[in-house]
Amino acid sequence: MQNIMSLETVSLNKDNDAVVIIDQTQLPYNIELIELRTQKEVWNAIYLLQVRGAPAIGVAAAFGIYIGAREIDTDSYNDFYKEFKDKKEYLATARPTAVNLFWALDRMESVVTKNEDKTVSEIKDLLFAEANEIKEEDIRVCKKIGEHGVTLVKDGYGILTHCNAGQLATVKYGTALSPIYVGLEKGYKFKVFTDETRPLLQGARLSAFELHSSGVDTTVICDNMASIVMKKGLIQAVFVGADRIAANGDAANKIGTSGVAIIAKHYDIPFYVCAPLSTFDLNCKTGDDIKIEERPAEEVTEMWYKKRMAPEGVNVFNPAFDVTDNKNIAGIVTEYGIARAPFNESIKQLFAKRDEKRI
Amino acid sequence: MQNIMSLETVSLNKDNDAVVIIDQTQLPYNIELIELRTQKEVWNAIYLLQVRGAPAIGVAAAFGIYIGAREIDTDSYNDFYKEFKDKKEYLATARPTAVNLFWALDRMESVVTKNEDKTVSEIKDLLFAEANEIKEEDIRVCKKIGEHGVTLVKDGYGILTHCNAGQLATVKYGTALSPIYVGLEKGYKFKVFTDETRPLLQGARLSAFELHSSGVDTTVICDNMASIVMKKGLIQAVFVGADRIAANGDAANKIGTSGVAIIAKHYDIPFYVCAPLSTFDLNCKTGDDIKIEERPAEEVTEMWYKKRMAPEGVNVFNPAFDVTDNKNIAGIVTEYGIARAPFNESIKQLFAKRDEKRI
Repeated sequence: MQNIMSLETVSLNKDNDAVVIIDQTQLPYNIELIELRTQKEVWNAIYLLQVRGAPAIGVAAAFGIYIGAREIDTDSYNDFYKEFKDKKEYLATARPTAVNLFWALDRMESVVTKNEDKTVSEIKDLLFAEANEIKEEDIRVCKKIGEHGVTLVKDGYGILTHCNAGQLATVKYGTALSPIYVGLEKGYKFKVFTDETRPLLQGARLSAFELHSSGVDTTVICDNMASIVMKKGLIQAVFVGADRIAANGDAANKIGTSGVAIIAKHYDIPFYVCAPLSTFDLNCKTGDDIKIEERPAEEVTEMWYKKRMAPEGVNVFNPAFDVTDNKNIAGIVTEYGIARAPFNESIKQLFAKRDEKRI
Repeated sequence: MQNIMSLETVSLNKDNDAVVIIDQTQLPYNIELIELRTQKEVWNAIYLLQVRGAPAIGVAAAFGIYIGAREIDTDSYNDFYKEFKDKKEYLATARPTAVNLFWALDRMESVVTKNEDKTVSEIKDLLFAEANEIKEEDIRVCKKIGEHGVTLVKDGYGILTHCNAGQLATVKYGTALSPIYVGLEKGYKFKVFTDETRPLLQGARLSAFELHSSGVDTTVICDNMASIVMKKGLIQAVFVGADRIAANGDAANKIGTSGVAIIAKHYDIPFYVCAPLSTFDLNCKTGDDIKIEERPAEEVTEMWYKKRMAPEGVNVFNPAFDVTDNKNIAGIVTEYGIARAPFNESIKQLFAKRDEKRI
């Protein structure tokens, strides 16, 4: 099995005119790199989860809007900005929950608005630089998350994760899995259990794939087995990612996460959310303010590439995310340190730390 | 869609020489009745989940051992009993967790041991009568469970169920779904959410099928969506079945049940287990005494009739059941009434009620 750790999940091609991604819908069968040459292709890749994971979506969107901006054929700042805004708004509709999508697009837009005095050509160069910086920052940030997160575990720990918040959800290292990879570098041996994560099986397909190919002892379980493995004493900590975190620490993540957190709390197992500050949306006071994407019923009823399993005519509810209450979260591991209850306060402190000195 | 409520899940054929079952591995595509003519065929059907659900397994085993006994070619009681024991022990190995399997086989054996004075031919007739009585009793018992269970709900309730403890898990009515069917007869309208129940999808395939074909408003969700539907206020009660219940009320049921119970408790939603007294194993003091069946990894990794989804080489843990702690159970609905905490005491009372007058 090829070790995908040698690849980047999202990057630009050599000519800087296409976004290159590992097509995650092909995993674990094929490690296929695909080039996205238009805005529409980037939008589709995000919508279809060929690229997924909040941080990776952010980087793909940054490169995507750069690719789009590059093709705006005008020397007029106003015309350029107008078209840029249209393209940005279009890309922002690809998925509604991952705040990193909007964060990256806003950050790219601010390059345009802050440089009204520059030529369009200069602005395009600055956009290129900014998109690359978003990517490089993602790598630094994920590494830092791992360094903070590894302080929460010991050699030999059993760790449960849900969905994929690993390398494949970022450019490198991942968020929830970064403490595991940093631990590996220290010689720690973990036993990692990955929920398969229905309906799209990101845990069975992606987390199991990247962990196993990195040499980690990996066990796939169905989502409904989290309770039994915890009860058996096989789990000492839970690490998950997040798609959007409210100011009070309530965290939206892949559907099922909130249930894992409730069950972990029941068994007194610490439940940690790992995410960069870019995942926080301080405009959301609590999780109730977070919009939850609903996806097509066929993802549930037709399983993965196959015929329908549920009888025709039944209803299907298919929310892509749920919100974990802050009271069920032992800590939120960010690149600036670990937030703990009371979260409003400690999250503010992490942002203050960032304002002092950026990673 | 054919209404399977007009069929019996397990019965004997006209000539009384084969067990007839609805092949549940074919649902929801085909409603196929198959005839099991040998012990080995009955064993396979139980092992392969062509017939499943603790009460239905009990009835299938009773008919199965009758079919086996019928073919013992001797007039000697001792030879007959010896061969009967062998056949019984063989059938008992088909699945380790469902106590109804052993309960039904023991009950059939006691027909043999209590009638040593009879001829072998007479004993065979008595075994036929006993197996039929086990089946008829199952129908009466399930109806009673529904009548007790319906007192716990109101018209308009949202009800969550896990796996299939419906008609298809019994001969008729079901256990966990019996309160819903009895409610329907009263004109109640429920909104039933059924966990798909990985790995074998008994919820998506079987519960959704029988509920929908009975005209119930049915929504399929992935197992990991139980938390979000509860949080949204869509669920007022949870009903599940059981495969074995300890003397203290700890209840083994399909994998994932214990997690649903923990989550329901978190949201203050009552969680009910529905099961006949034949599901209780008073030899098990607590759930720790209940043996949990582990099944092949391929059930998890290869989904349903399709290619492998998890990378080669990863471990898989595939327990078929878990145990729900009695503290997370609001009540156990039996044919003799509803047991509530402290369960040791109230379960004893139900058995005493049975000893007074059998249903």
